[in-house]
Amino acid sequence: MIEEIVTVNLLVGNMNMNDSSWKNTERLDLNSLELKKMQFKMLKKQLTRVYDESPYYKEKFDLAGVNPHEFSSLEQYKDYPMFDKYEERESQALSLKEQGHPLGMHLTCNIRDVNRMSASSGTTGTPSFQGHTANDRKIIERNFTRMAKMTGLRAGDKVLMAGVMSMWVAGLPTVDALLSYGANVIPIGGLVGSAKVIEMIQLTRPEVIICTPSFARQLLKKSKTELNIDLSQFCVRKLVVYGEPGGSVPEIVKELSEGFGGAEIFDMSGGTGCLNPIFAQCSEHDGMHFIAPDSAYIELYDRNAGKVIPFEDGAVGEFVYTDFDRECGPLIRFMDGDKMRVNMKPCKCGLAGMRFEILGRVDDMLLIKGVNVFPSAVRDLVMSFQGEVTGNVRIVKGSDSPVIEPPMIVKVECVGEPDSKALAELKQRLETIIQRQLRFKANIVLFYEGELPMEYGATGKIKLLETSS
Amino acid sequence: MIEEIVTVNLLVGNMNMNDSSWKNTERLDLNSLELKKMQFKMLKKQLTRVYDESPYYKEKFDLAGVNPHEFSSLEQYKDYPMFDKYEERESQALSLKEQGHPLGMHLTCNIRDVNRMSASSGTTGTPSFQGHTANDRKIIERNFTRMAKMTGLRAGDKVLMAGVMSMWVAGLPTVDALLSYGANVIPIGGLVGSAKVIEMIQLTRPEVIICTPSFARQLLKKSKTELNIDLSQFCVRKLVVYGEPGGSVPEIVKELSEGFGGAEIFDMSGGTGCLNPIFAQCSEHDGMHFIAPDSAYIELYDRNAGKVIPFEDGAVGEFVYTDFDRECGPLIRFMDGDKMRVNMKPCKCGLAGMRFEILGRVDDMLLIKGVNVFPSAVRDLVMSFQGEVTGNVRIVKGSDSPVIEPPMIVKVECVGEPDSKALAELKQRLETIIQRQLRFKANIVLFYEGELPMEYGATGKIKLLETSS
Repeated sequence: MIEEIVTVNLLVGNMNMNDSSWKNTERLDLNSLELKKMQFKMLKKQLTRVYDESPYYKEKFDLAGVNPHEFSSLEQYKDYPMFDKYEERESQALSLKEQGHPLGMHLTCNIRDVNRMSASSGTTGTPSFQGHTANDRKIIERNFTRMAKMTGLRAGDKVLMAGVMSMWVAGLPTVDALLSYGANVIPIGGLVGSAKVIEMIQLTRPEVIICTPSFARQLLKKSKTELNIDLSQFCVRKLVVYGEPGGSVPEIVKELSEGFGGAEIFDMSGGTGCLNPIFAQCSEHDGMHFIAPDSAYIELYDRNAGKVIPFEDGAVGEFVYTDFDRECGPLIRFMDGDKMRVNMKPCKCGLAGMRFEILGRVDDMLLIKGVNVFPSAVRDLVMSFQGEVTGNVRIVKGSDSPVIEPPMIVKVECVGEPDSKALAELKQRLETIIQRQLRFKANIVLFYEGELPMEYGATGKIKLLETSS
Repeated sequence: MIEEIVTVNLLVGNMNMNDSSWKNTERLDLNSLELKKMQFKMLKKQLTRVYDESPYYKEKFDLAGVNPHEFSSLEQYKDYPMFDKYEERESQALSLKEQGHPLGMHLTCNIRDVNRMSASSGTTGTPSFQGHTANDRKIIERNFTRMAKMTGLRAGDKVLMAGVMSMWVAGLPTVDALLSYGANVIPIGGLVGSAKVIEMIQLTRPEVIICTPSFARQLLKKSKTELNIDLSQFCVRKLVVYGEPGGSVPEIVKELSEGFGGAEIFDMSGGTGCLNPIFAQCSEHDGMHFIAPDSAYIELYDRNAGKVIPFEDGAVGEFVYTDFDRECGPLIRFMDGDKMRVNMKPCKCGLAGMRFEILGRVDDMLLIKGVNVFPSAVRDLVMSFQGEVTGNVRIVKGSDSPVIEPPMIVKVECVGEPDSKALAELKQRLETIIQRQLRFKANIVLFYEGELPMEYGATGKIKLLETSS
């Protein structure tokens, strides 16, 4: 899409998207001229602002030989420098040392105008921080309202928030947006543990639950196997899940819906550093819609080829995010590390625009016989044996390197305790399907039910990889 | 104060207290006529509202033979029925069963107008729930602003909230009010543990920390003895503490201030069921001021005599709270169970009104030789041996009964590892002072430093009592 030149001289229409007009096709279709005009205008405004006000960005842009004051078409954006989590971490370590705050040298507002600091969990090192001004909070509320309406969440609905709370960017900011939306918010957070959350479900009877899909699965498992409580009887209407691919994996969606008595499962997502949520499922449940083209500029990037590729149906690449409207430390061309397949076909819900499915983490990607394999692809294949396997799967890596020598050792938990003949036969079928579909040899190691406990990271996401020591 | 009759016919002045006019003496002095007029008006409005709109309160008032429509003087309020936590629990269990929500039969707004549910920790049974409407949230923000200005908290200050978060009523509602006040909020919560909070202090450099005093002490201890980090170097300007008496105990205040490099310690508090905070220290640190006479009607009640007593300097009683302006489930004449001594002397800061010190929990009160003893009184005596004792103190009860047969067994942790002669001598001095001041015999059991770990409840409060089994 960025190949077409949109110049400053084009008339820019009314771009106020605060009401439902954001759903208009010309404002949502990434390839519409009206949207390109708006995005060009917002991009130029943001680039100019950060260049003029942030010595960090000025230096970075100067080094790359770009000047936002001369930015005259979206096509030029490919020359702007990228940003990634390593650079973010360095920038934040330096600002802590030099300026006494962890928001990075790329902070582009006065530190005293920051209204909230959120952090990543820091599971893989020092947490990275994000700030929000009061205005940033308002934009989050606006985007949240779009997501809420798409999922049929109504003011007054009892909504139990059981995602990781507090610092985590999908935690307290979500509660804040829920309060502003007028939900009846039950803020509990996942840190209190699944038993306490189950108690709160019994005591408060939420109509909607927000959490990671693996935490939702954990709630079902714990209530059934340890507490003898049937969560299907509590009239939960919807589960809004985020943070990992489960909410778009049919087997997991089915399991969650049945476990919660027919609840409708909605997947939502954010782009790192943008004012979340920016992706949400509609009631067609056919991929996540991009709902905030006035908040985030997204490019599809092919890391191997080193270039931006067009948004065409079926195209695969990493999303690269730029904040249009964030005041506090916007990330400019941030490489998030998720590998996506985009869906540009019309959705039955009538909304134009881009949808996508997450293929996996670039970071987690494994190399086996020179071929890239996402751990999630292995898990999805195992999950197709629903009924025979519990869904607890773990790939064993020999080291921190992404390179795996075949056979890939995959631990899989069975339902119940099959006899040795059934075990041997299941192992054979699993190894065959992996060989056939993914083209490498796996060594499946089977466990009886309960013998391969799910492991969670600090954010409540299930761990798919383990490193043997 | 309620002996004076204030009638409906009195002219009611301008009672808008949204700005700093709440500090005016005639609006803050519990014995001023203007305040009585205002409180009478607000009380009548609330009583009439709950009587007309809540079948629960109508039945309760009818049974007691009172009718708010005939309420014509504050003096009549003594005839209104009381409310306590047992009744609250019953009401909430019933509403869960009959109406599918845990806010109690005494809910006085539409359930769909509730914007947030908070809960107590549930350490001593089923959690009790409190709801806030959007308007209730605004009143909390107003009262929080008064507290914040009294403690010198400024918009833009980095404030790390390390109290128990989420459901707990002093948790997320405080974060919400901080956001609205315009602080740079670092929402972390105490549930993540002291090591993580210390890491966040290092990474974010808060100017203000909010938590329980015992959690603040735990941070100092952990950083010093396990992590070798000096928290005095991080320029924390203020600690705002709540939830237990520590913030008004000179030895604890001194320890916290020194540990955090000269930080100023402010105590704050709320009245159960009211729109918190309603009590805050000024910079004179001479008791907590009552800062919201437009939110809460407070009576001083003598449980033994079964009657309300006047607000006179030095008077001791329980506070009984009535919400003036809460829409969602206001508690009418709620007996909170804290025993208070009121201070009606003028404060050097110039503010009129009532201050108080907490003597202890009525629930925790022990009976020894027929005399009431607060565990905190024992701890305060032990704390006067600062330098020799660490402050970890535990009273051992033989059963759930409040009755203790002398000698009372008191576990006390020493600083370092004194030799046997020093131990015997310290034990002797502690037993003597308890005998002299509290008039009963104690058996002091001394521990070396590190051998009597502090124990915390779910809210981050230190446990002062243990039951031997």
